[in-house]
Amino acid sequence: MNNQHWQNIKTQAEQWVREAGERIRISLASPLTVETKSNPNDLVTNMDKATEQFFVSRIRDTYHDHKIMGEEGFGDEFKDLNGTVWIIDPIDGTMNFVHQQRHFTISVGIYHDGVGQIGLIYDVMANEMYSALRGEGAETEGTPLHIDDKIGLEKALIGLNANWLTTNKHLHADALHFLVSDARGIRSYGSAALEIAYVTAGRLNAYATLRLSPWDYAGGLVIAQEAGAVATTLQGEPLDLLSRQSVLIAAPRVHEEIVQRLKIT
Amino acid sequence: MNNQHWQNIKTQAEQWVREAGERIRISLASPLTVETKSNPNDLVTNMDKATEQFFVSRIRDTYHDHKIMGEEGFGDEFKDLNGTVWIIDPIDGTMNFVHQQRHFTISVGIYHDGVGQIGLIYDVMANEMYSALRGEGAETEGTPLHIDDKIGLEKALIGLNANWLTTNKHLHADALHFLVSDARGIRSYGSAALEIAYVTAGRLNAYATLRLSPWDYAGGLVIAQEAGAVATTLQGEPLDLLSRQSVLIAAPRVHEEIVQRLKIT
Repeated sequence: MNNQHWQNIKTQAEQWVREAGERIRISLASPLTVETKSNPNDLVTNMDKATEQFFVSRIRDTYHDHKIMGEEGFGDEFKDLNGTVWIIDPIDGTMNFVHQQRHFTISVGIYHDGVGQIGLIYDVMANEMYSALRGEGAETEGTPLHIDDKIGLEKALIGLNANWLTTNKHLHADALHFLVSDARGIRSYGSAALEIAYVTAGRLNAYATLRLSPWDYAGGLVIAQEAGAVATTLQGEPLDLLSRQSVLIAAPRVHEEIVQRLKIT
Repeated sequence: MNNQHWQNIKTQAEQWVREAGERIRISLASPLTVETKSNPNDLVTNMDKATEQFFVSRIRDTYHDHKIMGEEGFGDEFKDLNGTVWIIDPIDGTMNFVHQQRHFTISVGIYHDGVGQIGLIYDVMANEMYSALRGEGAETEGTPLHIDDKIGLEKALIGLNANWLTTNKHLHADALHFLVSDARGIRSYGSAALEIAYVTAGRLNAYATLRLSPWDYAGGLVIAQEAGAVATTLQGEPLDLLSRQSVLIAAPRVHEEIVQRLKIT
């Protein structure tokens, strides 16, 4: 499959993402149905489900041999990433969607035999698209995205959820405290995909989390790599899109400093 | 002085704030001069200074008997808050201004004999003004702001800087950890005034900090009170605009729950 093949799919995917965003914006005039999933703070709304179904329907109609991995479970089951797979989070930052009506994103990653070909993150209310095509670079609304390869931790802004600074079951609660003291600042926006998009745009210089599902970063991973970021687990290991794991997406020097500091902690 | 007196000043102040914001937006095309103040992460730019000077010049020309308290020190010295005092942060969230070119605000509070009469917070890049006139309510871009008086901590989003969850000299590092476990979520945007504005708009339900200067919240305090929020120190004591202290601005039930929890911690 040549580059034009993926370019065509990217054009189609971007059109669907913008259309889905428009549907979500219109939906804000109507009451939301909010349910909880794994815990009282794990929210899902009728619009998460409707948006995923919108993508599933469009993809099934247009690309008969593509598979779909979606947060809300309307896609397929996966044992491997063979073939072409759309990895979709219909609304990343559902809590923000419910409480703020802003700061949520649609995230789409399109992979072929496990290799990221296309990445899209759409900040719905800001109407800002971040996108990448493998080998062709990343951009947002016409501006190329290039990660600063000189910035180090001491001048870095880090996207980090407060959960990872207090008692949690994944890592000693103090393990990431050095980020608070050694980096320039910590930000937390409540949408992994938005924070990864911000890393690609240089508004943050790292995004770190102890646990993330594939749909939260599948789109961002392609954009980050094309923009020149480094993406691994917090231990510096390759990411595996078939499991939940820690994720560190950062400017190269910031990435190296964080992984080294965690090794000696 | 009647209400029309303060309404006229509010109209003038809002016009200056929007003009200052426009100057800042235009300045983004030119290189910034960034210096550090009390520590390497305490940034100030030529635009912080130029914006404060813009306000000082306009106020001195128009309101000869008004006094000015500004973050960058171009105003007056204060031993009390007698008379009419403008309390100004020309750019709140300077780190965001430098790193992100968004998520920073202009904050203006106008007090008479220590009583807040006018509050303005302007999210410069979003072009969103939050404003209040004492006794006349609060609004943002034509929408009245009314705090949810039913929401409790378990469904609250809290604006909190990660510094206050790790070792710090103001309070035991663990003292605020209950916010992470008991609230619905923690957000950190890097501008106190923006986070207070978000509380008034219901996008956050509390903003908590262990140390804040008067210019960071003087504008927000008026808006928050008019919108129905409660504003005190973290100990529940009245705020003093002549000192740096802890600040808790929150929806009523959320405020009460946080103050009670801190008393028994």
